[in-house]
Amino acid sequence: MKNTFGQSLTVTVYGESHGSAVGAVIDGISPGIKIDSDYIDKKLAMRRPTGLISTGRVETDEYEFLSGVYNGYTTGTPLNITIKNSNTRSGDYDNLEVVPRPSHADFTANQKYGGYQDYRGGGHFSGRVTAGIVLAGAIISSALEKKGIKIGTHIKTLHGVADAEFSDYEKDIEKLNARHFPALCEEKEDAMKNEILKARENLDSVGGVLESAIIGLPCGLGEPWFDSVESVLSHILFSVPGIKGVEFGSGFQFADMYGSEANDAFIYDGESVRTKTNNNGGINGGITNSMPITVRCAVKPTPSIAKAQYTLNTSTLKEEKLVIKGRHDPAIIHRARAVVDACLAIAVADLLTMRYGTDYLGR
Amino acid sequence: MKNTFGQSLTVTVYGESHGSAVGAVIDGISPGIKIDSDYIDKKLAMRRPTGLISTGRVETDEYEFLSGVYNGYTTGTPLNITIKNSNTRSGDYDNLEVVPRPSHADFTANQKYGGYQDYRGGGHFSGRVTAGIVLAGAIISSALEKKGIKIGTHIKTLHGVADAEFSDYEKDIEKLNARHFPALCEEKEDAMKNEILKARENLDSVGGVLESAIIGLPCGLGEPWFDSVESVLSHILFSVPGIKGVEFGSGFQFADMYGSEANDAFIYDGESVRTKTNNNGGINGGITNSMPITVRCAVKPTPSIAKAQYTLNTSTLKEEKLVIKGRHDPAIIHRARAVVDACLAIAVADLLTMRYGTDYLGR
Amino acid sequence: MKNTFGQSLTVTVYGESHGSAVGAVIDGISPGIKIDSDYIDKKLAMRRPTGLISTGRVETDEYEFLSGVYNGYTTGTPLNITIKNSNTRSGDYDNLEVVPRPSHADFTANQKYGGYQDYRGGGHFSGRVTAGIVLAGAIISSALEKKGIKIGTHIKTLHGVADAEFSDYEKDIEKLNARHFPALCEEKEDAMKNEILKARENLDSVGGVLESAIIGLPCGLGEPWFDSVESVLSHILFSVPGIKGVEFGSGFQFADMYGSEANDAFIYDGESVRTKTNNNGGINGGITNSMPITVRCAVKPTPSIAKAQYTLNTSTLKEEKLVIKGRHDPAIIHRARAVVDACLAIAVADLLTMRYGTDYLGR
Amino acid sequence: MKNTFGQSLTVTVYGESHGSAVGAVIDGISPGIKIDSDYIDKKLAMRRPTGLISTGRVETDEYEFLSGVYNGYTTGTPLNITIKNSNTRSGDYDNLEVVPRPSHADFTANQKYGGYQDYRGGGHFSGRVTAGIVLAGAIISSALEKKGIKIGTHIKTLHGVADAEFSDYEKDIEKLNARHFPALCEEKEDAMKNEILKARENLDSVGGVLESAIIGLPCGLGEPWFDSVESVLSHILFSVPGIKGVEFGSGFQFADMYGSEANDAFIYDGESVRTKTNNNGGINGGITNSMPITVRCAVKPTPSIAKAQYTLNTSTLKEEKLVIKGRHDPAIIHRARAVVDACLAIAVADLLTMRYGTDYLGR
Repeated sequence: MKNTFGQSLTVTVYGESHGSAVGAVIDGISPGIKIDSDYIDKKLAMRRPTGLISTGRVETDEYEFLSGVYNGYTTGTPLNITIKNSNTRSGDYDNLEVVPRPSHADFTANQKYGGYQDYRGGGHFSGRVTAGIVLAGAIISSALEKKGIKIGTHIKTLHGVADAEFSDYEKDIEKLNARHFPALCEEKEDAMKNEILKARENLDSVGGVLESAIIGLPCGLGEPWFDSVESVLSHILFSVPGIKGVEFGSGFQFADMYGSEANDAFIYDGESVRTKTNNNGGINGGITNSMPITVRCAVKPTPSIAKAQYTLNTSTLKEEKLVIKGRHDPAIIHRARAVVDACLAIAVADLLTMRYGTDYLGR
Repeated sequence: MKNTFGQSLTVTVYGESHGSAVGAVIDGISPGIKIDSDYIDKKLAMRRPTGLISTGRVETDEYEFLSGVYNGYTTGTPLNITIKNSNTRSGDYDNLEVVPRPSHADFTANQKYGGYQDYRGGGHFSGRVTAGIVLAGAIISSALEKKGIKIGTHIKTLHGVADAEFSDYEKDIEKLNARHFPALCEEKEDAMKNEILKARENLDSVGGVLESAIIGLPCGLGEPWFDSVESVLSHILFSVPGIKGVEFGSGFQFADMYGSEANDAFIYDGESVRTKTNNNGGINGGITNSMPITVRCAVKPTPSIAKAQYTLNTSTLKEEKLVIKGRHDPAIIHRARAVVDACLAIAVADLLTMRYGTDYLGR
Repeated sequence: MKNTFGQSLTVTVYGESHGSAVGAVIDGISPGIKIDSDYIDKKLAMRRPTGLISTGRVETDEYEFLSGVYNGYTTGTPLNITIKNSNTRSGDYDNLEVVPRPSHADFTANQKYGGYQDYRGGGHFSGRVTAGIVLAGAIISSALEKKGIKIGTHIKTLHGVADAEFSDYEKDIEKLNARHFPALCEEKEDAMKNEILKARENLDSVGGVLESAIIGLPCGLGEPWFDSVESVLSHILFSVPGIKGVEFGSGFQFADMYGSEANDAFIYDGESVRTKTNNNGGINGGITNSMPITVRCAVKPTPSIAKAQYTLNTSTLKEEKLVIKGRHDPAIIHRARAVVDACLAIAVADLLTMRYGTDYLGR
Repeated sequence: MKNTFGQSLTVTVYGESHGSAVGAVIDGISPGIKIDSDYIDKKLAMRRPTGLISTGRVETDEYEFLSGVYNGYTTGTPLNITIKNSNTRSGDYDNLEVVPRPSHADFTANQKYGGYQDYRGGGHFSGRVTAGIVLAGAIISSALEKKGIKIGTHIKTLHGVADAEFSDYEKDIEKLNARHFPALCEEKEDAMKNEILKARENLDSVGGVLESAIIGLPCGLGEPWFDSVESVLSHILFSVPGIKGVEFGSGFQFADMYGSEANDAFIYDGESVRTKTNNNGGINGGITNSMPITVRCAVKPTPSIAKAQYTLNTSTLKEEKLVIKGRHDPAIIHRARAVVDACLAIAVADLLTMRYGTDYLGR
């Protein structure tokens, strides 16, 4: 519902890039989830910019619980976690109202909110708001991990550079969650970073594809119409700025396959029923089948580039050369990884809460 | 919410493949929408199987309004439209409970519903249920068209055969909506049908990619978090059986572009603000920018193939050779077009109703 | 959401008094609930008019499952239950569009739906639509009873005649559910019926107060803000036509009590914690405390009276004498009992499903 | 949805009595609503305790906008308004976990949240949380007033003392909103205050009945099933602590009326269609008819009394004498008036937003 995701466990995000705070409210979270500040800090760090591959705007990300936590555990009542903004340079964004940045939300926000929006730094559309998602996701995923449900994301490709494939999901997820740059292969990491630095030198930006895996989910989550697992996950993923494509399992590759190649035969591995292949990415008919969920997100190149661009002055209706001031990310895909992980955790928690009830995650 | 889509205008689908009926309930629809039965029949015909490229199961699709229509117009109260099932051969599906068809929902439905599901012909997971979506979509899209909002879908690729590109959206949409097989180029249509027939001869099936366009939408629809236009459209699209990938605008192609190539510059065309290119598929920051919405769906090959497959007998836990009885579609992508059109109409109507109020569509 | 009640288990009602059918769609119901047609028939009979104390319009109430039931059990997919209308005399209602009946919805429906509503017999606002609620409630309450959750309603007062008080909840509920006229005391039943017949002779109608009890609910249902148990129950009760007041426990009597008189002390009865008195009607802070839920509904006199009334001709804007044709209920309170029982069952089932998950009711 | 009210415009409240903050998040609010801090302060003042008729705990109620306001207007994005808690004396509440206060939520919260709740001062169940509701209501009702929609509430009766009746709704509402103690008649105000002071002297508390009126609403708000205006208003009202009864129009008095006495005849007053009497409190068939909405709430006596009470020690399972420490309200009904006004504003705004769209309130 608007700025709220979920049905049984819901997350609302609030805040503007240059307003006083950003954060999230979680409603319907189980009581009894331990707040692990080291874990939360680790997740925030994955999203935080570092070095030349990211923006120079560094926020300290000091969060505070306004409600819903007592004695180090979730209480079960609405949990409001907030980060005060700092290190904002509003002057950088003075003319966005009139000269909208290409491929940003400046123009559409103005159309939607009739000029009342806080346009500074993208306002509520800013990637800054994803800090609230990462916080909510961190609290939730720490509870999921206790149930053996693990989520990991790597950069599958970045402007032509392809990472290694997932081989052992459990180990690969563990490895990814220990690394600041989300590549499985260290050589590929260097090649990817070089692509980013090259884009930076050219005052440009690059995108790529993120690939995530979720393991440990029970069978039977999701609904046939219209809350298939793909529907629920894509819903939250497509709200992440820059994500313009989502595919599950073999995704767009299915288009060139025969049914006999695409079908995943059921087998028994001595312990449980699974499928021989996983072209369906762990989901049959919209319902989890206990195989790993695999999902890929196309992330477009950061629209804020340092290079001069031509766009429209919506006041004069004349073309205008625009040089975006402020600090830019030559790529956001490595930081978006933390947001994608958080989104997946939130969506999965909602599905689990609906199926098993409001106390499930805290038990 | 489960088997209901939407917030301000909602659609619930009900029914099982071999139960007594399938249909849809629309709640929150404006009063005063004229029921155009020719229009509805045309939309149903697009979904109906014909010839060797589809299944031999032909339903007459005679629908009845159980409620919500009076004197030929929607009343504004819940509209229940229903189709009685006929031409069902339940005997064909006797062993699905024990020997689940690969890549179908037989196994996951059994896990989810604990054996109580109507497994015959896939039950509630059957493509048969999409007839209800097409009916709801037809009623809604006839109202959208009166507002200049038009939706069209073609097969972009089918097992390697690519259709022509959209060139003039308005004309192309009109053309597609007048054709039973959704290809822009007639030569490509023949080539695609040949691929389907070849698959049929091989007792196999093929998939492909559907591409849709929506024109005439006002600026400012959608919400930043979490109800972006991409989120809302993908949510309903991913509930369509067989859809495993959704991308907007340049989608996965963004991964190889630089920001300077990807950005859509704003221009003034003498009448209104638009963008020079449309890599973002008509959506910036999750909000419509008045350019055509472009969206592509990956459709997997029909999992029901006539060829023998190996799968698991979940009772004996032994591998078993499965020959699926019943009548099969060697491809569903051309029929899925009607469902995708309907889904897009429903989702767009929900966004419009939320923004402009409950009377909007009937005015 | 509009014509849908509930969050985890939802019920949508559809239909018009003189349309083709009325019914209900239940979404989110557990698989595995046995359909007990005797039980359903008994509940329908409680709502059905009989004798001179009710309308002469008798419907056979033959229902049909359009979906969601297989082999005698709920499947867990949307359950659509429908009753075809019969015995309608539309001619009786010809001028309601222009001369709205006092205290009916004719005028407001016309304002809301702009003349597109089916005005015959009150259309979607008709008490006829409550048949769908009773059907949905019957399916659900049969499952609740298996968990020891029981609901019963009696007429507390009818135009000055007061029934006996609840004494032994379990026995009283059983007694009420075995009786067609919902009075605990048989002498009072006669007196109440006499009041109804007297009203009928005077071409008039009477109202009263219904009192319900729910026993067997676990502690901990409900939410502090804004889904208190009182909020959820009153929400559904106030949608029943004619209900204009709802109170829990001591309700409006609290206004004259001191805190020291009103407070319910906790005690231990050797088996469990309970309260000495039950002024709070089983709910503290919006949450169930395991004591019986007690709730009373004020039911206004049926607005359709046979006596001539003066009202407005909205076309001429002149006062007009109105004699309502058709068949009338001199009282609906005894029939409304079945609807109130059903509403309480639906609301309680939603609270339980949210707390314990989607399989709870069928286990 | 749990701690969120509304569908098109939603309000979530968060916070605990002795936690770091309380507040509210409004989602779906129109852009362009002017923030009037004098108006907000006036509303907060109505809720704030003063003198001997209220608790000695005085909060400064300094609020801060964390998001959703820019340049003095709502932006249309989620508005988070927060009040830091101060003046808390947690030591006063040490044993509530073990010795639950009668008629408070201490026991039920413990059952619901399994001991993880913040029990200090009632935690999330505390009346303190209503400050967030008053803030949200104030922002919304300032916008409603610009549209001519006005809300006022007085104490109809307080432990036997009855106020004057509403006579001229517009003037009476204006008068009430200018007064700190919500009585229409000043003599009755003194009598009511005396009742409160008498209760205070006796270490006891009193309740009463609040009566509200809403004028200026357009015809046609509300839905037949299940979102009648009564349903929506009662839903939010019953979440206010202490409210145990809600009635509309003649409410429980209907029980003793004949239909011919109860019916409200439609008349034409030379300007518009209205009804001669208003027994239905402005609502026919769940839909507004343009007459004033009248609603009464039964408020129970404050359960926190200074007098010693017997209750249960849930650890020893022995009866225990309880003297509630801390500062008490001998009556909350005069303060609850501000919360009821706010609740009505929120509910009405949701109905209007649904019907007229998301920009309505800010236009």
